[in-house]
Amino acid sequence: MYNFAKRMEEVSASAVREIIKLMSNPEIISFGGGSPANESFPIDTIQDIIDKALRENGNQILQYGVTEGWKALREAYLEHIAYPKGISASLENVITITGATQGIQLISDVFLDPGDVVLVESPTFLSTLMVFNKNFIKCVPVETDEHGMIMEDLEEKIKRYHPKMLYSIPTFQNPTGITLPLERRKKIAELASTFNMMVMEDDPYGDLRYRGEALPPIKSFDQTGHVILLNSFSKTISPGLRVGTVLAEPEIIQKLIIAKQCADTHTTNLTQVVCAEFLNRGLLPGHLKAITPIYSARMDAMLEGIKNYFPTGTQYIQPEGGLFIWAELPGEPDMQALLEKAVRDCKVAFVPGKPFFVNPEDGRKSLRLNFSSNTPERIEEGMKRLGGVLSGIEIS
Amino acid sequence: MYNFAKRMEEVSASAVREIIKLMSNPEIISFGGGSPANESFPIDTIQDIIDKALRENGNQILQYGVTEGWKALREAYLEHIAYPKGISASLENVITITGATQGIQLISDVFLDPGDVVLVESPTFLSTLMVFNKNFIKCVPVETDEHGMIMEDLEEKIKRYHPKMLYSIPTFQNPTGITLPLERRKKIAELASTFNMMVMEDDPYGDLRYRGEALPPIKSFDQTGHVILLNSFSKTISPGLRVGTVLAEPEIIQKLIIAKQCADTHTTNLTQVVCAEFLNRGLLPGHLKAITPIYSARMDAMLEGIKNYFPTGTQYIQPEGGLFIWAELPGEPDMQALLEKAVRDCKVAFVPGKPFFVNPEDGRKSLRLNFSSNTPERIEEGMKRLGGVLSGIEIS
Repeated sequence: MYNFAKRMEEVSASAVREIIKLMSNPEIISFGGGSPANESFPIDTIQDIIDKALRENGNQILQYGVTEGWKALREAYLEHIAYPKGISASLENVITITGATQGIQLISDVFLDPGDVVLVESPTFLSTLMVFNKNFIKCVPVETDEHGMIMEDLEEKIKRYHPKMLYSIPTFQNPTGITLPLERRKKIAELASTFNMMVMEDDPYGDLRYRGEALPPIKSFDQTGHVILLNSFSKTISPGLRVGTVLAEPEIIQKLIIAKQCADTHTTNLTQVVCAEFLNRGLLPGHLKAITPIYSARMDAMLEGIKNYFPTGTQYIQPEGGLFIWAELPGEPDMQALLEKAVRDCKVAFVPGKPFFVNPEDGRKSLRLNFSSNTPERIEEGMKRLGGVLSGIEIS
Repeated sequence: MYNFAKRMEEVSASAVREIIKLMSNPEIISFGGGSPANESFPIDTIQDIIDKALRENGNQILQYGVTEGWKALREAYLEHIAYPKGISASLENVITITGATQGIQLISDVFLDPGDVVLVESPTFLSTLMVFNKNFIKCVPVETDEHGMIMEDLEEKIKRYHPKMLYSIPTFQNPTGITLPLERRKKIAELASTFNMMVMEDDPYGDLRYRGEALPPIKSFDQTGHVILLNSFSKTISPGLRVGTVLAEPEIIQKLIIAKQCADTHTTNLTQVVCAEFLNRGLLPGHLKAITPIYSARMDAMLEGIKNYFPTGTQYIQPEGGLFIWAELPGEPDMQALLEKAVRDCKVAFVPGKPFFVNPEDGRKSLRLNFSSNTPERIEEGMKRLGGVLSGIEIS
């Protein structure tokens, strides 16, 4: 009956958000979603921070805040997150946002007109594709190998398509788990500068490293202001709080402030206070040290499960961190039918590969598996059941 | 240096958000902004709700939530807010949002293509004009008298412009404080249905009534699903929490869910829990009873101030509730110069009328005054100083 805007024809509900709903059914072992472990949340600390903050500063916290964000959080972000990653910046370089997804939407609002070209990794984060599709942005996929985007293809596509922006998740990429090596990070900053292309660097998972050495963000090599860095507290403290940050040149931050005034006026003060105080109490390093072994064990359990139960010929990536494992099945599997069968017959959920691709057919053999939100025991059980479905073996 | 999207040329920073920054200077008596009274925030109750909720349900609250919102809040909204206003609806009619501003943006996303026409009251909420301008929506002002939109002009403009939507704040309108009478509310619902026009009914202030009888929302007369009702907890509990709701037909809610997935995934769980529990404990009526006399006294102080100190010939509206008084000065005042002089010489801020109009010149003689965020004593002092500036009298 309703005459909706044309942009709504370009998007459908997120496959992941729909699958997350299944997770409320405790019978389902869900490898869909990208949720942190329930056990990882620092509930007592958050409670203590809120009690103290409301007691000392309740009126300011419950009042309207400024659109650029809670000052203490912007300062704490610069000191405890940006600086240790090799980025020296000041307050005017930071705006806080209502989760990193809002950052993707706002950056898109500020830079991209309908018809503009954005280069994306292939595959890439499906919510980002949703945002770009909704805004009539033309996404062009850059070829990837086991180390992420191939620089030759990137350069060729820059020259061919004159993209306004590159969207990249360089560390523990969603959905592949791949981490872009140092030299490619430097090269991207260089190409951005040479060809006057913006880079949206999305880094929600970078602190969840279980092996190998940390790498500096692309932003740390940015000499010309072409790189915009998105960070999030969703995977390190709590996603339910909805807090993230954007770091960029002040001229860009000013435009993001205007776009955010239209989007939600400002991010909830209380949750910004929680993140600020968590950083200022120096709790993040210890918290990461406590949760990464949990995730590491879950990742190992899932990798074991693929080896033990998935069909012979399954190809998969072994990440050094993050939340996801990406696999490609042999033959010509019907992933949607397999998902339905898996949920119905053996109560296991995953995300089929198609929505992560600009050209969905490229993902017809792939699936994304999340390991962070189940115990190793449940992962073992779920992978056994799922392996049975994927191999066409009936599980009684 | 940067090549920003064209839409960013259509908007500049919100006049109000910029003026709110002045409020951090305690020397300034600000009648800008639209902030609730600091004294109105139920800090202890919020603290108690959060303590209990995190203790009992911390993992779920800190985890990702569903995009349509925290179920207990959607239920509580239906029972404690919609139903008492004459609206019977069910869960599938409600989505929670990150403050009502997000609702304006999402509804615009879902319904309006560039070039579409929206009718707006003249004057209207400046942030809404920002959202429409950014999205290349053509706003057509509807003439208003002292009771709000004139129905003959509304009908004529519907016939002439075939608008896709009408945006209205029927109760204690921002910026004028005007309340649309019952018959006009019914007429709007009828016109919407007859001419297949959507109505975005924005009602953030309706519960802040200091005199007169409450009126049912336009939505309560909607027989055909053309009215979308926006509510907010910003003025009744706390704006810093950033929580609001949209009530509409399920088909519309489904589209809003998709748009919100792109906007911020979901609204902060913790603040939704606060609002839900505040309603479910039955605290809202008592809270309103406690805060409305505070606001009423402030409104009276401001009306007194206009009478006593503003230039002879000043016209103004006497609202029955809300947060604002709207005044028009005699002669040909330069409001921007007067604002600068007021801030600089006598440390008083207000919002000049222009940004509230589709045609800014229509607001050249007007100003909006907020009375909720200052004590009657400060209002008396501020109005005295401001009256001096407006009358061209030097204040020593």
